[in-house]
Amino acid sequence: MVFVQIREAKEGDCGHIMRLIRVKSASPKPGSHRGSTSGWRGGEGTSRVRETFGSDLRADGFGENPFYHCLVAESLPGPGESQGPCVVGYGLYYFIYSTWKGRNVYLEDIYVKPEYQGQGIGSKIIKKVAEVALDKGCSQFRLSVLDWNKRAMDLYKALGAQDLTEAEGWHSFRFEGEVMRKLAGK
Amino acid sequence: MVFVQIREAKEGDCGHIMRLIRVKSASPKPGSHRGSTSGWRGGEGTSRVRETFGSDLRADGFGENPFYHCLVAESLPGPGESQGPCVVGYGLYYFIYSTWKGRNVYLEDIYVKPEYQGQGIGSKIIKKVAEVALDKGCSQFRLSVLDWNKRAMDLYKALGAQDLTEAEGWHSFRFEGEVMRKLAGK
Repeated sequence: MVFVQIREAKEGDCGHIMRLIRVKSASPKPGSHRGSTSGWRGGEGTSRVRETFGSDLRADGFGENPFYHCLVAESLPGPGESQGPCVVGYGLYYFIYSTWKGRNVYLEDIYVKPEYQGQGIGSKIIKKVAEVALDKGCSQFRLSVLDWNKRAMDLYKALGAQDLTEAEGWHSFRFEGEVMRKLAGK
Repeated sequence: MVFVQIREAKEGDCGHIMRLIRVKSASPKPGSHRGSTSGWRGGEGTSRVRETFGSDLRADGFGENPFYHCLVAESLPGPGESQGPCVVGYGLYYFIYSTWKGRNVYLEDIYVKPEYQGQGIGSKIIKKVAEVALDKGCSQFRLSVLDWNKRAMDLYKALGAQDLTEAEGWHSFRFEGEVMRKLAGK
Protein backbone atom coordinates (compact mmCIF):
# COMPACT_ATOMS: atom_id res chain seq x y z
CA MET A 1 0.00 0.00 0.00
CA VAL A 2 1.54 3.32 -1.10
CA PHE A 3 0.82 6.50 0.79
CA VAL A 4 -1.28 8.92 -1.23
CA GLN A 5 -2.10 12.48 -0.24
CA ILE A 6 -4.91 14.57 -1.71
CA ARG A 7 -3.94 18.20 -2.21
CA GLU A 8 -4.99 21.26 -4.17
CA ALA A 9 -3.47 21.32 -7.66
CA LYS A 10 -0.77 23.90 -8.35
CA GLU A 11 -0.07 25.50 -11.71
CA GLY A 12 2.95 23.23 -12.09
CA ASP A 13 0.68 20.15 -11.96
CA CYS A 14 -1.11 21.05 -15.23
CA GLY A 15 1.25 18.94 -17.36
CA HIS A 16 0.66 15.87 -15.16
CA ILE A 17 -3.12 16.43 -15.12
CA MET A 18 -3.16 16.82 -18.94
CA ARG A 19 -1.29 13.51 -19.28
CA LEU A 20 -3.87 11.78 -17.06
CA ILE A 21 -6.74 13.31 -19.08
CA ARG A 22 -5.11 11.91 -22.24
CA VAL A 23 -4.64 8.47 -20.65
CA LYS A 24 -8.28 8.50 -19.60
CA SER A 25 -9.48 9.50 -23.07
CA ALA A 26 -7.40 6.74 -24.66
CA SER A 27 -8.70 3.96 -22.36
CA PRO A 28 -9.92 0.82 -24.17
CA LYS A 29 -13.55 0.96 -25.34
CA PRO A 30 -16.02 -1.76 -24.31
CA GLY A 31 -18.58 -3.32 -26.66
CA SER A 32 -21.01 -0.51 -25.87
CA HIS A 33 -20.79 2.68 -27.93
CA ARG A 34 -21.03 4.65 -24.75
CA GLY A 35 -17.41 4.50 -23.70
CA SER A 36 -15.16 2.53 -21.43
CA THR A 37 -16.21 0.48 -18.44
CA SER A 38 -12.62 -0.29 -17.55
CA GLY A 39 -10.97 1.19 -14.51
CA TRP A 40 -12.30 3.65 -11.99
CA ARG A 41 -13.87 6.45 -13.93
CA GLY A 42 -16.49 8.98 -12.93
CA GLY A 43 -17.65 12.30 -14.34
CA GLU A 44 -17.26 12.62 -18.11
CA GLY A 45 -15.87 9.13 -18.31
CA THR A 46 -16.31 8.43 -22.01
CA SER A 47 -13.51 7.67 -24.40
CA ARG A 48 -14.64 10.21 -26.99
CA VAL A 49 -11.81 12.11 -28.58
CA ARG A 50 -11.48 15.57 -27.13
CA GLU A 51 -12.12 18.06 -29.87
CA THR A 52 -11.49 21.59 -28.79
CA PHE A 53 -9.55 21.30 -25.57
CA GLY A 54 -5.93 22.29 -25.87
CA SER A 55 -3.41 23.94 -23.64
CA ASP A 56 -5.78 26.18 -21.66
CA LEU A 57 -5.84 24.10 -18.49
CA ARG A 58 -3.24 26.45 -17.03
CA ALA A 59 -4.87 29.73 -18.11
CA ASP A 60 -8.42 28.62 -17.25
CA GLY A 61 -7.61 27.25 -13.80
CA PHE A 62 -4.93 29.58 -12.52
CA GLY A 63 -5.91 33.03 -13.74
CA GLU A 64 -7.67 35.78 -11.80
CA ASN A 65 -11.17 34.26 -12.14
CA PRO A 66 -10.52 30.52 -12.45
CA PHE A 67 -13.10 28.48 -14.38
CA TYR A 68 -12.35 25.39 -12.29
CA HIS A 69 -10.47 24.06 -9.29
CA CYS A 70 -8.62 20.79 -9.10
CA LEU A 71 -7.43 18.32 -6.49
CA VAL A 72 -4.62 15.90 -7.22
CA ALA A 73 -3.84 12.56 -5.62
CA GLU A 74 -0.09 12.34 -5.16
CA SER A 75 1.74 9.15 -4.26
CA LEU A 76 4.63 9.72 -1.87
CA PRO A 77 7.80 7.65 -2.01
CA GLY A 78 8.33 5.06 0.73
CA PRO A 79 11.54 4.89 2.82
CA GLY A 80 14.53 4.19 0.56
CA GLU A 81 12.58 4.69 -2.69
CA SER A 82 14.29 6.83 -5.28
CA GLN A 83 11.19 7.99 -7.20
CA GLY A 84 9.77 11.38 -6.18
CA PRO A 85 6.12 12.28 -5.51
CA CYS A 86 3.90 11.38 -8.47
CA VAL A 87 0.41 12.61 -9.51
CA VAL A 88 -1.74 9.47 -9.87
CA GLY A 89 -5.23 10.95 -10.01
CA TYR A 90 -7.28 14.13 -10.09
CA GLY A 91 -10.72 15.52 -9.31
CA LEU A 92 -11.75 18.63 -11.23
CA TYR A 93 -14.57 20.64 -9.68
CA TYR A 94 -16.15 24.09 -9.72
CA PHE A 95 -18.70 26.09 -7.77
CA ILE A 96 -22.23 26.31 -9.12
CA TYR A 97 -25.37 28.05 -7.89
CA SER A 98 -28.98 27.17 -7.24
CA THR A 99 -31.84 29.65 -6.90
CA TRP A 100 -33.22 27.19 -4.32
CA LYS A 101 -30.11 26.19 -2.41
CA GLY A 102 -27.50 28.90 -3.02
CA ARG A 103 -23.85 27.82 -3.36
CA ASN A 104 -23.16 24.27 -4.51
CA VAL A 105 -20.18 22.37 -5.80
CA TYR A 106 -19.98 20.18 -8.93
CA LEU A 107 -17.41 17.43 -9.45
CA GLU A 108 -16.95 17.44 -13.21
CA ASP A 109 -14.33 14.77 -13.66
CA ILE A 110 -12.46 12.30 -11.49
CA TYR A 111 -9.81 9.79 -12.45
CA VAL A 112 -7.32 7.50 -10.77
CA LYS A 113 -4.60 5.68 -12.73
CA PRO A 114 -5.54 1.98 -13.15
CA GLU A 115 -2.55 0.72 -11.14
CA TYR A 116 -3.64 2.86 -8.15
CA GLN A 117 -7.30 1.89 -8.26
CA GLY A 118 -8.97 -0.20 -5.55
CA GLN A 119 -7.17 1.67 -2.76
CA GLY A 120 -9.89 4.16 -1.92
CA ILE A 121 -8.18 7.09 -3.67
CA GLY A 122 -11.35 8.02 -5.61
CA SER A 123 -13.32 8.12 -2.37
CA LYS A 124 -10.61 10.23 -0.75
CA ILE A 125 -10.88 12.78 -3.59
CA ILE A 126 -14.69 12.83 -3.27
CA LYS A 127 -14.45 13.34 0.50
CA LYS A 128 -12.00 16.19 0.05
CA VAL A 129 -14.37 17.89 -2.43
CA ALA A 130 -17.17 17.60 0.17
CA GLU A 131 -14.85 19.19 2.75
CA VAL A 132 -13.95 22.11 0.44
CA ALA A 133 -17.65 22.53 -0.41
CA LEU A 134 -18.69 22.80 3.25
CA ASP A 135 -15.87 25.25 3.93
CA LYS A 136 -17.23 27.43 1.10
CA GLY A 137 -20.78 27.33 2.45
CA CYS A 138 -22.18 24.93 -0.16
CA SER A 139 -25.28 22.93 0.67
CA GLN A 140 -25.15 20.46 -2.24
CA PHE A 141 -22.46 18.44 -4.00
CA ARG A 142 -23.52 17.36 -7.48
CA LEU A 143 -21.97 15.18 -10.18
CA SER A 144 -23.04 13.21 -13.24
CA VAL A 145 -22.31 9.67 -14.33
CA LEU A 146 -23.05 7.54 -17.39
CA ASP A 147 -25.53 4.71 -16.81
CA TRP A 148 -23.09 2.01 -18.01
CA ASN A 149 -20.59 3.03 -15.33
CA LYS A 150 -22.13 0.83 -12.66
CA ARG A 151 -18.96 0.77 -10.58
CA ALA A 152 -18.98 4.57 -10.17
CA MET A 153 -22.77 4.68 -9.64
CA ASP A 154 -22.53 2.03 -6.91
CA LEU A 155 -19.75 3.94 -5.18
CA TYR A 156 -21.68 7.24 -5.24
CA LYS A 157 -24.78 5.50 -3.90
CA ALA A 158 -22.74 3.73 -1.22
CA LEU A 159 -21.36 7.12 -0.16
CA GLY A 160 -24.94 8.40 0.17
CA ALA A 161 -25.59 10.22 -3.12
CA GLN A 162 -29.06 10.24 -4.63
CA ASP A 163 -29.60 9.48 -8.33
CA LEU A 164 -31.74 12.49 -9.26
CA THR A 165 -32.42 11.25 -12.78
CA GLU A 166 -33.91 8.06 -11.33
CA ALA A 167 -35.63 9.70 -8.35
CA GLU A 168 -36.91 12.95 -9.84
CA GLY A 169 -36.53 12.60 -13.61
CA TRP A 170 -33.77 15.13 -14.29
CA HIS A 171 -32.46 15.09 -17.87
CA SER A 172 -29.25 16.80 -19.02
CA PHE A 173 -29.43 18.85 -22.21
CA ARG A 174 -26.65 20.36 -24.27
CA PHE A 175 -26.29 22.82 -27.14
CA GLU A 176 -22.95 22.87 -28.97
CA GLY A 177 -21.14 23.64 -32.20
CA GLU A 178 -23.14 25.01 -35.12
CA VAL A 179 -26.43 24.79 -33.15
CA MET A 180 -25.00 26.99 -30.42
CA ARG A 181 -23.65 29.54 -32.90
CA LYS A 182 -27.00 29.65 -34.69
CA LEU A 183 -28.77 30.12 -31.33
CA ALA A 184 -26.52 33.09 -30.60
CA GLY A 185 -27.12 34.51 -34.10
CA LYS A 186 -23.42 34.18 -34.99
CA MET B 1 -47.34 42.82 -27.57
CA VAL B 2 -45.13 44.61 -25.02
CA PHE B 3 -41.51 45.34 -25.78
CA VAL B 4 -39.16 43.30 -23.63
CA GLN B 5 -35.40 43.70 -23.47
CA ILE B 6 -32.95 41.12 -22.16
CA ARG B 7 -30.11 42.66 -20.17
CA GLU B 8 -27.51 41.71 -17.60
CA ALA B 9 -28.86 41.86 -14.04
CA LYS B 10 -27.60 44.65 -11.80
CA GLU B 11 -27.26 44.48 -8.04
CA GLY B 12 -30.43 46.56 -7.71
CA ASP B 13 -32.42 43.83 -9.52
CA CYS B 14 -31.87 41.26 -6.74
CA GLY B 15 -35.12 42.16 -4.95
CA HIS B 16 -37.13 41.70 -8.18
CA ILE B 17 -35.36 38.42 -8.99
CA MET B 18 -35.98 37.12 -5.45
CA ARG B 19 -39.69 37.93 -5.83
CA LEU B 20 -39.83 35.97 -9.11
CA ILE B 21 -38.01 33.02 -7.50
CA ARG B 22 -40.66 33.05 -4.75
CA VAL B 23 -43.51 33.25 -7.28
CA LYS B 24 -42.00 30.32 -9.17
CA SER B 25 -41.61 28.23 -6.01
CA ALA B 26 -45.22 28.93 -5.03
CA SER B 27 -46.73 27.95 -8.42
CA PRO B 28 -49.65 25.52 -8.25
CA LYS B 29 -48.67 21.86 -8.04
CA PRO B 30 -50.03 19.35 -10.56
CA GLY B 31 -51.21 15.85 -9.65
CA SER B 32 -47.69 14.56 -10.05
CA HIS B 33 -45.37 14.71 -7.04
CA ARG B 34 -42.68 16.09 -9.27
CA GLY B 35 -43.80 19.71 -9.34
CA SER B 36 -45.74 22.06 -11.51
CA THR B 37 -46.40 21.69 -15.22
CA SER B 38 -48.06 25.07 -15.38
CA GLY B 39 -46.44 27.98 -17.14
CA TRP B 40 -43.09 28.29 -18.82
CA ARG B 41 -40.56 26.80 -16.46
CA GLY B 42 -37.14 25.38 -17.14
CA GLY B 43 -34.11 24.59 -15.00
CA GLU B 44 -34.92 23.70 -11.40
CA GLY B 45 -38.62 24.09 -12.06
CA THR B 46 -40.09 22.21 -9.13
CA SER B 47 -42.29 23.70 -6.49
CA ARG B 48 -40.27 22.33 -3.58
CA VAL B 49 -39.94 24.75 -0.74
CA ARG B 50 -36.55 26.39 -0.70
CA GLU B 51 -34.79 25.42 2.49
CA THR B 52 -31.52 27.20 2.91
CA PHE B 53 -31.62 30.02 0.42
CA GLY B 54 -31.97 33.41 1.98
CA SER B 55 -30.72 36.86 1.23
CA ASP B 56 -27.39 35.91 -0.34
CA LEU B 57 -28.40 36.52 -3.96
CA ARG B 58 -26.74 39.92 -3.74
CA ALA B 59 -23.52 38.83 -2.04
CA ASP B 60 -23.12 35.67 -4.13
CA GLY B 61 -23.71 37.30 -7.51
CA PHE B 62 -22.17 40.72 -7.12
CA GLY B 63 -19.03 40.20 -5.06
CA GLU B 64 -15.46 39.92 -6.30
CA ASN B 65 -15.74 36.28 -7.45
CA PRO B 66 -19.43 35.89 -8.31
CA PHE B 67 -20.93 32.41 -7.98
CA TYR B 68 -23.43 33.13 -10.76
CA HIS B 69 -24.48 35.58 -13.45
CA CYS B 70 -28.02 36.58 -14.29
CA LEU B 71 -29.98 38.00 -17.19
CA VAL B 72 -33.29 39.74 -16.66
CA ALA B 73 -36.16 40.24 -19.08
CA GLU B 74 -37.47 43.76 -18.58
CA SER B 75 -40.73 44.99 -20.05
CA LEU B 76 -40.55 48.60 -21.24
CA PRO B 77 -43.52 50.95 -21.00
CA GLY B 78 -45.34 51.81 -24.23
CA PRO B 79 -45.97 55.44 -25.30
CA GLY B 80 -48.19 57.19 -22.76
CA GLU B 81 -47.96 54.36 -20.19
CA SER B 82 -47.26 55.48 -16.66
CA GLN B 83 -45.68 52.23 -15.36
CA GLY B 84 -41.90 52.11 -15.43
CA PRO B 85 -39.69 49.24 -16.68
CA CYS B 86 -40.54 45.97 -14.92
CA VAL B 87 -38.53 42.72 -14.46
CA VAL B 88 -40.76 39.93 -15.82
CA GLY B 89 -38.29 37.05 -16.09
CA TYR B 90 -34.76 35.91 -15.41
CA GLY B 91 -32.14 33.40 -16.53
CA LEU B 92 -29.50 32.49 -13.95
CA TYR B 93 -26.32 30.95 -15.38
CA TYR B 94 -22.68 30.31 -14.53
CA PHE B 95 -19.52 29.14 -16.22
CA ILE B 96 -18.49 25.52 -15.86
CA TYR B 97 -15.55 23.51 -17.18
CA SER B 98 -14.98 20.27 -19.02
CA THR B 99 -11.68 18.37 -19.19
CA TRP B 100 -12.79 17.45 -22.73
CA LYS B 101 -14.22 20.72 -23.98
CA GLY B 102 -12.80 23.49 -21.81
CA ARG B 103 -15.06 26.43 -20.93
CA ASN B 104 -18.81 25.83 -20.97
CA VAL B 105 -21.88 27.64 -19.72
CA TYR B 106 -24.74 26.21 -17.63
CA LEU B 107 -28.22 27.72 -17.46
CA GLU B 108 -29.35 26.82 -13.95
CA ASP B 109 -32.76 28.40 -13.82
CA ILE B 110 -35.05 30.30 -16.17
CA TYR B 111 -38.46 31.78 -15.49
CA VAL B 112 -40.93 34.11 -17.17
CA LYS B 113 -44.00 35.44 -15.34
CA PRO B 114 -47.14 33.62 -16.52
CA GLU B 115 -48.75 36.75 -18.00
CA TYR B 116 -45.68 37.30 -20.20
CA GLN B 117 -45.37 33.71 -21.41
CA GLY B 118 -45.99 32.69 -25.02
CA GLN B 119 -44.16 35.73 -26.39
CA GLY B 120 -40.77 34.14 -26.97
CA ILE B 121 -39.15 35.75 -23.92
CA GLY B 122 -37.76 32.41 -22.67
CA SER B 123 -36.17 31.79 -26.08
CA LYS B 124 -34.72 35.32 -26.05
CA ILE B 125 -33.07 34.65 -22.67
CA ILE B 126 -31.67 31.32 -23.94
CA LYS B 127 -30.29 32.99 -27.07
CA LYS B 128 -28.65 35.71 -25.02
CA VAL B 129 -26.98 33.07 -22.80
CA ALA B 130 -25.63 31.40 -25.97
CA GLU B 131 -24.28 34.77 -27.12
CA VAL B 132 -22.55 35.44 -23.78
CA ALA B 133 -21.16 31.89 -23.84
CA LEU B 134 -19.60 32.30 -27.29
CA ASP B 135 -18.15 35.67 -26.31
CA LYS B 136 -16.47 33.94 -23.34
CA GLY B 137 -15.02 31.17 -25.51
CA CYS B 138 -17.41 28.43 -24.38
CA SER B 139 -17.98 25.45 -26.64
CA GLN B 140 -21.02 23.97 -24.88
CA PHE B 141 -24.21 25.30 -23.31
CA ARG B 142 -25.74 22.86 -20.85
CA LEU B 143 -28.93 22.80 -18.81
CA SER B 144 -31.18 20.30 -17.03
CA VAL B 145 -34.90 19.77 -17.13
CA LEU B 146 -37.38 17.52 -15.33
CA ASP B 147 -38.98 14.83 -17.50
CA TRP B 148 -42.54 16.00 -16.73
CA ASN B 149 -41.76 19.44 -18.14
CA LYS B 150 -42.53 18.49 -21.72
CA ARG B 151 -43.09 22.07 -22.77
CA ALA B 152 -39.54 23.08 -21.81
CA MET B 153 -38.05 19.85 -23.23
CA ASP B 154 -39.81 20.43 -26.55
CA LEU B 155 -38.55 24.01 -26.71
CA TYR B 156 -34.94 23.02 -25.98
CA LYS B 157 -35.12 20.28 -28.61
CA ALA B 158 -36.71 22.66 -31.13
CA LEU B 159 -33.82 25.06 -30.50
CA GLY B 160 -31.38 22.23 -31.28
CA ALA B 161 -30.37 20.90 -27.85
CA GLN B 162 -29.59 17.23 -27.40
CA ASP B 163 -31.08 15.24 -24.50
CA LEU B 164 -27.89 13.65 -23.14
CA THR B 165 -29.71 11.50 -20.60
CA GLU B 166 -31.73 9.95 -23.43
CA ALA B 167 -28.90 9.81 -25.98
CA GLU B 168 -25.91 8.87 -23.83
CA GLY B 169 -27.33 7.80 -20.47
CA TRP B 170 -26.14 10.63 -18.24
CA HIS B 171 -27.54 10.54 -14.69
CA SER B 172 -27.37 13.44 -12.21
CA PHE B 173 -26.29 12.61 -8.66
CA ARG B 174 -26.37 14.73 -5.53
CA PHE B 175 -25.03 14.61 -1.98
CA GLU B 176 -26.55 16.98 0.53
CA GLY B 177 -27.30 17.68 4.18
CA GLU B 178 -26.16 15.14 6.75
CA VAL B 179 -24.77 12.81 4.06
CA MET B 180 -22.52 15.57 2.75
CA ARG B 181 -21.31 16.50 6.23
CA LYS B 182 -20.56 12.84 7.00
CA LEU B 183 -18.68 12.56 3.69
CA ALA B 184 -16.55 15.55 4.67
CA GLY B 185 -15.97 14.08 8.15
CA LYS B 186 -17.72 17.03 9.84
